[in-house]
Amino acid sequence: MGERILGFHAIEEALKQAPQGSVLYICRNMEKRNERLESLAKVNRGVAVRKIAKVEMDRMTQGADHRGAFLELSRTREKSAVKNSTLSVKDFLNSLSDDKGALVLVLDGITDVQNLGAIMRSADQFSADLVVVPERRSAQSNETVLRISSGAAQYVPTATVTNLVREIELLQKHGFWVYGADMGGSPISSTRFPERTVLVMGSEGDGMSQLVAKRCDHIVSIPTSGHIDSLNVSVAAGILLYEFRRQRSVAER
Amino acid sequence: MGERILGFHAIEEALKQAPQGSVLYICRNMEKRNERLESLAKVNRGVAVRKIAKVEMDRMTQGADHRGAFLELSRTREKSAVKNSTLSVKDFLNSLSDDKGALVLVLDGITDVQNLGAIMRSADQFSADLVVVPERRSAQSNETVLRISSGAAQYVPTATVTNLVREIELLQKHGFWVYGADMGGSPISSTRFPERTVLVMGSEGDGMSQLVAKRCDHIVSIPTSGHIDSLNVSVAAGILLYEFRRQRSVAER
Repeated sequence: MGERILGFHAIEEALKQAPQGSVLYICRNMEKRNERLESLAKVNRGVAVRKIAKVEMDRMTQGADHRGAFLELSRTREKSAVKNSTLSVKDFLNSLSDDKGALVLVLDGITDVQNLGAIMRSADQFSADLVVVPERRSAQSNETVLRISSGAAQYVPTATVTNLVREIELLQKHGFWVYGADMGGSPISSTRFPERTVLVMGSEGDGMSQLVAKRCDHIVSIPTSGHIDSLNVSVAAGILLYEFRRQRSVAER
Repeated sequence: MGERILGFHAIEEALKQAPQGSVLYICRNMEKRNERLESLAKVNRGVAVRKIAKVEMDRMTQGADHRGAFLELSRTREKSAVKNSTLSVKDFLNSLSDDKGALVLVLDGITDVQNLGAIMRSADQFSADLVVVPERRSAQSNETVLRISSGAAQYVPTATVTNLVREIELLQKHGFWVYGADMGGSPISSTRFPERTVLVMGSEGDGMSQLVAKRCDHIVSIPTSGHIDSLNVSVAAGILLYEFRRQRSVAER
């Protein structure tokens, strides 16, 4: 069985490059907008459309919130898709030419899939060159995250690693400067991010782990003045990515 | 700001009947027994738990012997949180002195409570002076939103209104300029927000309603370059609020 994609926008995106042999399943008489997915599947001639009953879809998706549609990617694609978007930090560095800038986002223990999905969507929007996620104590970039990200997660190069500190050190050896987000850091609005920047976001409750925080070259924070101590982590990540791109575009003018 | 309770046993007692919107602050990596307070707070679902650094708690408690925990009771004990923080746009304008700048956030049909909660948290963090929410076709700032916002929603002055367009016109008559967020607008990084700014966010799927979009003085967008067409709405709202405050702080330097 191939990879399954749920969620209207995620399916819409995936259909654009779904491989031969993929199948779009649609429930009879459910959401009107699913007709649009059917038309899209017909444009991509390798994708078959099957109309099935809701009970059947409930069974096939094991009770997931399917909203009457899911796409099953054929296995050829499944392998290549995973290979395409998952790589090692070393591979990423090897593919980077010597003089090129890059933006890497390191997520130190984001456990909520809603937050990870929103962060992946922002990483796509602000063209992060790599997202690094630890193998343990972290939500993983799976089908749920893909759906929450409205399909964006598939476009974001992601490295799943066993040891965050080691990978951060490797990035530093290749000219990256590492900025950890934490309260009490220097305000990002007066920080000048270099061309090769790593942004590190800590977990929702506890922030960065001590070992990771120690490896950072700088600790930065978003200047705020509210009653509650911090922003939602996906909002904070979005603001950091935005600020990095804003500064680069000013620098390139 | 509500009443503060310090001391393990006092907090333990108070948690049993702490009102909706109270916040338990705990220091990271301090006393083991504080975990019990955390569990108690989780039983009382109206109490949010925030983990903060010791330096932050020292500051918030002005050097008291806090032993890594304090409880902030919400003022909702007297009345409901909704009554305390809800006012009309007219009242808000009357309370604003003639020469004072202000930031108003208008939410045109945010239906997801997770998004509304995250937006209220950002509105608190970036000191929005007023959030305007329509009475219909919108999530309301209720107890669930309060919890998702980590208690921040209680601090954000909110107006629930029947007719968004009319309230926007009223704000314009009082010197506010209205910026609607939509794709294809001018990039916010090259927009100069005035002292009296209204930011309008549309709904997750459909954006602003046509009537509201027509009333805007400017349409602005966040410069992005991803495969998927937009950011999560709470991330986008956070970036707009951040950018407004960034510009004001540069202007005031």
